[in-house]
Amino acid sequence: MKLLFPLMAIVLEASMIILFGFFVKYETEQNAIQPLNNTNTTKVDRSLELHPLFQDVHVMIFVGIGFLMTFLKKYGFSSVGINLLIAALGLQWGTFIQGIVHHHGQTIYIGIKNMINADFSTATVLISFGAVLGKISPAQMLIMTIIEITVFAGNEYVVGEIFKASDIGASMTIHAFGAYFGLAVAGVLYRPGLRWGHEKEESVYHSDLFAMIGTLFLWIFWPSFNSAIAETTEQQYTAIVNTYFSLVACVLTAYAFSSFVGKRGKLDMVHIQNATLAGGVAVGTCADMEIHPYGAMIIGGIAGIVSVLGFKFLTPCLTEKLRIHDTCGVHNLHGLPGVIGGLASIVAIVLGASKGSPRGKKLTMNEDDGHNQPEPKD
Amino acid sequence: MKLLFPLMAIVLEASMIILFGFFVKYETEQNAIQPLNNTNTTKVDRSLELHPLFQDVHVMIFVGIGFLMTFLKKYGFSSVGINLLIAALGLQWGTFIQGIVHHHGQTIYIGIKNMINADFSTATVLISFGAVLGKISPAQMLIMTIIEITVFAGNEYVVGEIFKASDIGASMTIHAFGAYFGLAVAGVLYRPGLRWGHEKEESVYHSDLFAMIGTLFLWIFWPSFNSAIAETTEQQYTAIVNTYFSLVACVLTAYAFSSFVGKRGKLDMVHIQNATLAGGVAVGTCADMEIHPYGAMIIGGIAGIVSVLGFKFLTPCLTEKLRIHDTCGVHNLHGLPGVIGGLASIVAIVLGASKGSPRGKKLTMNEDDGHNQPEPKD
Amino acid sequence: MKLLFPLMAIVLEASMIILFGFFVKYETEQNAIQPLNNTNTTKVDRSLELHPLFQDVHVMIFVGIGFLMTFLKKYGFSSVGINLLIAALGLQWGTFIQGIVHHHGQTIYIGIKNMINADFSTATVLISFGAVLGKISPAQMLIMTIIEITVFAGNEYVVGEIFKASDIGASMTIHAFGAYFGLAVAGVLYRPGLRWGHEKEESVYHSDLFAMIGTLFLWIFWPSFNSAIAETTEQQYTAIVNTYFSLVACVLTAYAFSSFVGKRGKLDMVHIQNATLAGGVAVGTCADMEIHPYGAMIIGGIAGIVSVLGFKFLTPCLTEKLRIHDTCGVHNLHGLPGVIGGLASIVAIVLGASKGSPRGKKLTMNEDDGHNQPEPKD
Repeated sequence: MKLLFPLMAIVLEASMIILFGFFVKYETEQNAIQPLNNTNTTKVDRSLELHPLFQDVHVMIFVGIGFLMTFLKKYGFSSVGINLLIAALGLQWGTFIQGIVHHHGQTIYIGIKNMINADFSTATVLISFGAVLGKISPAQMLIMTIIEITVFAGNEYVVGEIFKASDIGASMTIHAFGAYFGLAVAGVLYRPGLRWGHEKEESVYHSDLFAMIGTLFLWIFWPSFNSAIAETTEQQYTAIVNTYFSLVACVLTAYAFSSFVGKRGKLDMVHIQNATLAGGVAVGTCADMEIHPYGAMIIGGIAGIVSVLGFKFLTPCLTEKLRIHDTCGVHNLHGLPGVIGGLASIVAIVLGASKGSPRGKKLTMNEDDGHNQPEPKD
Repeated sequence: MKLLFPLMAIVLEASMIILFGFFVKYETEQNAIQPLNNTNTTKVDRSLELHPLFQDVHVMIFVGIGFLMTFLKKYGFSSVGINLLIAALGLQWGTFIQGIVHHHGQTIYIGIKNMINADFSTATVLISFGAVLGKISPAQMLIMTIIEITVFAGNEYVVGEIFKASDIGASMTIHAFGAYFGLAVAGVLYRPGLRWGHEKEESVYHSDLFAMIGTLFLWIFWPSFNSAIAETTEQQYTAIVNTYFSLVACVLTAYAFSSFVGKRGKLDMVHIQNATLAGGVAVGTCADMEIHPYGAMIIGGIAGIVSVLGFKFLTPCLTEKLRIHDTCGVHNLHGLPGVIGGLASIVAIVLGASKGSPRGKKLTMNEDDGHNQPEPKD
Repeated sequence: MKLLFPLMAIVLEASMIILFGFFVKYETEQNAIQPLNNTNTTKVDRSLELHPLFQDVHVMIFVGIGFLMTFLKKYGFSSVGINLLIAALGLQWGTFIQGIVHHHGQTIYIGIKNMINADFSTATVLISFGAVLGKISPAQMLIMTIIEITVFAGNEYVVGEIFKASDIGASMTIHAFGAYFGLAVAGVLYRPGLRWGHEKEESVYHSDLFAMIGTLFLWIFWPSFNSAIAETTEQQYTAIVNTYFSLVACVLTAYAFSSFVGKRGKLDMVHIQNATLAGGVAVGTCADMEIHPYGAMIIGGIAGIVSVLGFKFLTPCLTEKLRIHDTCGVHNLHGLPGVIGGLASIVAIVLGASKGSPRGKKLTMNEDDGHNQPEPKD
């Protein structure tokens, strides 16, 4: 048994190297085959424009999610350490499987956009990890990473390319999917002992401060997450502004309700660490639509309230009634706000806000604005 | 009383949503009304150029200032948590009130530059918060945020648009203003008990390391703070280089004087956490002027010395003689260095260094360099 | 003796100010002398393109290396605090001495690229500092900083401009050089007491989490480190992609071997904090060559294994047999992987991968891609 984890990790890495050797090439090699007419802005230049956004998302995945889960005093190492392991495997497998799904098995040309998408697929597993933290071994997590990213890539393909559903910030495909996948695994792994005791599940003063590092970096860079794969700079701008205003409104309502449901009006650190981020999740699906700043603030405000109420009333209920033990409360941070995001986008489309989204803009869009537009042949 | 804070937060957020519904629109909606002739670089493209600088400033506000104040062992949660609350409210109110002041009550079109300016107005309140940490309730902080940002916006308008004073890095309008506003409030809130005891005001080993997270992110990104709203890329470049060299010189003199005034030459962590940043504050006002790297180093070097001496001799004096208790020593990090910044800019202008600043450059400036220049009509 | 450190720091800073007053000017002053024909992209615009990469590298130097060394419970302050001091002096001296070496004693015009190079020269000293942490006083470190950066600048000049060796990510010139310089100093400073006891050299739970902050920021931004000074955007892209894939592969093998050599399969936090970064060091020299993603993954995978084995078997051996006490294990993170980087680049060149590197590309390179290319005279 001692050799199980090392062997699995080595075999997985060796397999990745072999798969990449056969299927993965540089984006620049694609350019060599299909030369661009426009010499001033090559594909690589466009790709590097996305680099700062990629770095923001990367900080969210490794520092943000990694430290957010350190609030439990005994799981600090597990959360940051296993987070890094899962992410490193997830980025490789995500790059490969998303490439295969979108390019139907042909050569995958890697650009910064693929690296952002690999971060997204990895985020799904890390969200699920929050629900099963403390109940699962590193070796099991490696298997779960491979399975979940495969399902994610298939699901994302169906939602985005078959149904043509708009989900720019991935409220549903990443957050709700990751949360409910994790809860399903947590349900399977339920042991009666989890119901009482939970002595490892207490936070201490310093562990709460470490978790705030995660919260703040997620909060700061969430606008980059929701805008990173937008097709035009105009949509990118809209997604940044909407996410920013959703998050600020969410903080006010989360603090208000945390104090409201707390003993003697005291703020609960778990709410501050998690519910303040619900606005970023909830605004994701319609982040690139013209919902106006006040619309984004309404969505964020509602998400903050729902998330706090979820932590207070729903999580204990899930554990006791449904026998699903959600270690970090991912249902309240990703599950419920993801569902709010889906509902909000329905309302937004009904009210006509989607004219800012890809389909509405396509006819008037200036090709020079797009990052991955097909090149005009002159 | 238990309901005071939740009700205030909810009412404030609801008011913000209503105000934003009436007054705040996307920058892209402005473009639709006033179409630009130049199709290659739209206003949105320019706006997104500022995005990396905006993110740097955002990290300073939330991680930098938030963690800098964690050094007191009992105020770790308050500092990071209330910092996030103040900032979330301040960003909304700052966006609104600055928009109203600068656009005389008409519609406010939100771009990345407005978001940077909202961060600046919020910084003012967070600086003041450092003086009153531990003496003020969350509900009182909400009121102080609204009042201080309103006064700030008026003051900034008078300084910048009536007096036409140059203050690119806002040494005076943000740092000195924030510090003295905070000290005034601290003077009002003075209780004799603050004079002795202060048992909550001790740092412990780990709280000092948390504070260093704040120090380092502030130190690293300060060049972005001082250059973010510069009008031309050339001034932006000058502000980055000057701030960088002011900060490195400040570190050497702050360490030297910390050891010099310390017992048996020992370095004081409070000086390392705070005085090393004084160079960023002091160079702010003349950051975009041609003061040359050595000029910036002289300003930074002096600021480091003054800041350490302030912590050692002035802070105890303020508490005992003037009955003003400055919890985090903001007078030494923001007040005194802000005043040095003002004096330095007078010297710089007398010596002719301001030819790099907006007024001197205006006649020779290439419009393509400016981020928010009015468009030429062809 | 109490006055030694303050006096040294003040004298050094005063000397820097004088040297900068005589030798260092803004890049914009150079433009005034040699006006560019192309008004759309000035040298300053190009310079600012590098700004986000510069900030990434800056975060690595101050937060990354600073916090990585906090894992020893008693050296937390020393590592972060002295790291800042060394870096502030190193940036000034590095700017000056690199400018003098490359421009043969004439005026140095400062741009963002010089600031990145100053960060690189400083990194060398900080790597060496990891080997001598706890054995050396702040005053001694100031002297070591001046000496080591001078030697580094000379060495870099010989390697890069005389031998024309390619070392884009500086595996050899920074990492191996810094590690072996540090080990040499550690050998000189060896005292028999270091062999046993080492009671200060234990990590505690929280100190390990602080170290993970350093690890993660280094890991996330390493692609920027290896690509920051690449000459063309295409090489920059290649360096980013190769470093990224080397790092993800390195994590898997480091975890596998940490568990393999650990007691009952347990992961060792020191390996997770350090060996996961070895892939970034090892791929440095050939980061801009067309080694393909799978080639980068092989290099990273090997580096992860070698680094873990180094911590487990070589470090105890160095201390006992060679009487070299390597506090932070820099030999395993920078020394061995740096040597692997050198060997890997030999293999890569033999296999023809260097056609992507400066010499191979020079004839076909588009001048518009270069950041610091000489301007064409039209």
